[in-house]
Amino acid sequence: MNLDIYNNLKRGVESTYINLNPIQRGGVLTAEARKAVLEFADGYSVCDYCFESRVDLVQKPPVRNLSADIAEFLNMDDVRFTAGCRHAKWAAMHMVTEPGDTIVLDSLAHYTSYLAAEANQLKVVEVPHNGYPEFTIDPQMYAEKFEEVERKTGSLPALALLTHVDYRYGNVADAAAVGKICKEYGVPFLLNTAYSSGIMPIDGKKLGVDFLCASGHKSWAASAPMGILATTFEWSQQVFEKSTIRGDWSGRGFTKKEVALFGCSPVFGAPVMSLMASFPAVVKRVKHWNEEVENARYLASQLERIEGFHQMGVKPTEHTLVAFETFPFYEVSATTKRRGYFLYHELKKRKITGVHPGMSKNFKLNTYGLSREQVEYVADAFIDIAREHGIKVGAST
Amino acid sequence: MNLDIYNNLKRGVESTYINLNPIQRGGVLTAEARKAVLEFADGYSVCDYCFESRVDLVQKPPVRNLSADIAEFLNMDDVRFTAGCRHAKWAAMHMVTEPGDTIVLDSLAHYTSYLAAEANQLKVVEVPHNGYPEFTIDPQMYAEKFEEVERKTGSLPALALLTHVDYRYGNVADAAAVGKICKEYGVPFLLNTAYSSGIMPIDGKKLGVDFLCASGHKSWAASAPMGILATTFEWSQQVFEKSTIRGDWSGRGFTKKEVALFGCSPVFGAPVMSLMASFPAVVKRVKHWNEEVENARYLASQLERIEGFHQMGVKPTEHTLVAFETFPFYEVSATTKRRGYFLYHELKKRKITGVHPGMSKNFKLNTYGLSREQVEYVADAFIDIAREHGIKVGAST
Repeated sequence: MNLDIYNNLKRGVESTYINLNPIQRGGVLTAEARKAVLEFADGYSVCDYCFESRVDLVQKPPVRNLSADIAEFLNMDDVRFTAGCRHAKWAAMHMVTEPGDTIVLDSLAHYTSYLAAEANQLKVVEVPHNGYPEFTIDPQMYAEKFEEVERKTGSLPALALLTHVDYRYGNVADAAAVGKICKEYGVPFLLNTAYSSGIMPIDGKKLGVDFLCASGHKSWAASAPMGILATTFEWSQQVFEKSTIRGDWSGRGFTKKEVALFGCSPVFGAPVMSLMASFPAVVKRVKHWNEEVENARYLASQLERIEGFHQMGVKPTEHTLVAFETFPFYEVSATTKRRGYFLYHELKKRKITGVHPGMSKNFKLNTYGLSREQVEYVADAFIDIAREHGIKVGAST
Repeated sequence: MNLDIYNNLKRGVESTYINLNPIQRGGVLTAEARKAVLEFADGYSVCDYCFESRVDLVQKPPVRNLSADIAEFLNMDDVRFTAGCRHAKWAAMHMVTEPGDTIVLDSLAHYTSYLAAEANQLKVVEVPHNGYPEFTIDPQMYAEKFEEVERKTGSLPALALLTHVDYRYGNVADAAAVGKICKEYGVPFLLNTAYSSGIMPIDGKKLGVDFLCASGHKSWAASAPMGILATTFEWSQQVFEKSTIRGDWSGRGFTKKEVALFGCSPVFGAPVMSLMASFPAVVKRVKHWNEEVENARYLASQLERIEGFHQMGVKPTEHTLVAFETFPFYEVSATTKRRGYFLYHELKKRKITGVHPGMSKNFKLNTYGLSREQVEYVADAFIDIAREHGIKVGAST
């Protein structure tokens, strides 16, 4: 066992680089969060003054306040913290469905939505997207799928899941329309806001959401793993059902603990405290969402000056996560020793990182939180790389 | 919404204090881990160079090596990381049992063991302890309970769970004896090492363990939430079963992802990297377990000089987590304005923290990782508090 490899661990990504990694932009900690992580890095550091056996009820530090404030911020009624959005999805499904049930989800859903269904022994029926190049979801298709499920199984689906913003194209789905259909059919509605809440304004009630899942490390400037499960008064008791198990010999019971949270969510330390420390900044930053989208649109317009480059998904983009089809780069990669990695290295030379190493035919990036100057620098870098490899670049419009 | 309460967050526990909190001693970060937490605090920081869609397979930083080295360290064959020990227990049960099954567990088990069973719709049958003042578990009772379950349900229990070291008295259960009985009956054996692996030497094979669960933030000097699920080659494929779900319209599948880990364990950041950074120190520190126990025994012997004080659990203690019955302090509390909180404040005056605020009739503490000088200081403090409140203290033996 060579233990030396664990000494002096470094990311190998310079902090001075511009990082375009789609999953990382919304999770970059605020300075306040970084301080909180150091202060609360030790195991169980949040439990110094725990008197009610659950982390969400701790008053010092003010976790209980945070739960209430986040519920208000999302316009939902009740909130719990989870070990990532994936656990929140599993928990909601676990408490609302029965094994063998069918749920309906969009075909752009994250793999953790499918896996949460699988771990709950659920069948999934997908709502199709409209394919290349837009890949949009028609809300009306939820109604069609509900009826299809009813015809085939004799009952409506146990749950509908919509990915508010998908991880592939950054399309913003029409959650309010899906929420309305769910209400009409009486199907509970789970909205995955991993790429929306925390960076853009969300009003759960206006969207007709029954369960809202969020990712702290994806979009709330928090350390991993940090998830949020929010629900309404109507569902709160069922989703956050208390434990009823009893020891047959000891008679022990744990009536304050909640089943789907494994009793008490294990985020007691850096995750919940970084979420808390970043929360004031998060409340402010969602108000600037339009400026963020403007930056992404600017970058897309510049990249489309490169001959053969096309933005995929809805145009102009409505999100900072944007996917591009970049066939000319793929042609270049065939002629270089580094193959698909040439793009990664060209960007690295220019102190830009986060485009998946090896990708050149298409890739996605996220401009969230970058300044306009940084976005312009990134645009110039791509144009520069294109020109250096003999690809034509159109005039700036 | 008053966001000012989230500014400048502090634990309110001075880092210069001696912290005796039973759940915290083994989770105090090493200096190396503290550095790693800062370096990897951002969401998804471990995923910069992820090529195989699972955090345990990441090679830079060397998470893949860490998995293998921890398996070797525990003498198990295969290891995954989980969002806390509670998730590891749920995962093992989920993959090995069926809803409605019965499992046998010790009556000193942590609430998360019961809750993991509850979330998997399992029935629990408890192995009794022998009551006051020792509270030990007789391994032979596992055989009796197995037969009882077989008589009542027609089949042996689906799983046996033993808490290696219980959280109430710090008793070290005879895991090897339980492992032997499990093997004889063919009942899979899950050992919860939340208070043992990471601080004391563990040899999973020697103990006859099929599934070993560990807590990084409890005993491996890691940030929360960090759990470990280790198993044998025999069980590996079943416990870490790959996803087989498929989109009915898209045909999407996720065949690299593991069901019970929700695809990829969300510890990608501070948790796994602090575990990694502390690992070399952990490998070393378990060799000094005897010295740690000596410190706890010394403290117990000193506290028992106080008239009416009794150590509970096995004597002399075999662990650094020790519980005391302290009736004279309870009598004092009845006469003070601060009631049960007097002890907390008396200790705080002496720069000692971690005894549950409000407790005086009995309490538990943990000396793990304290120097002999610190332990002597703590002993003197308790004796001092006793004398100041008119409680007799016997001579030092």
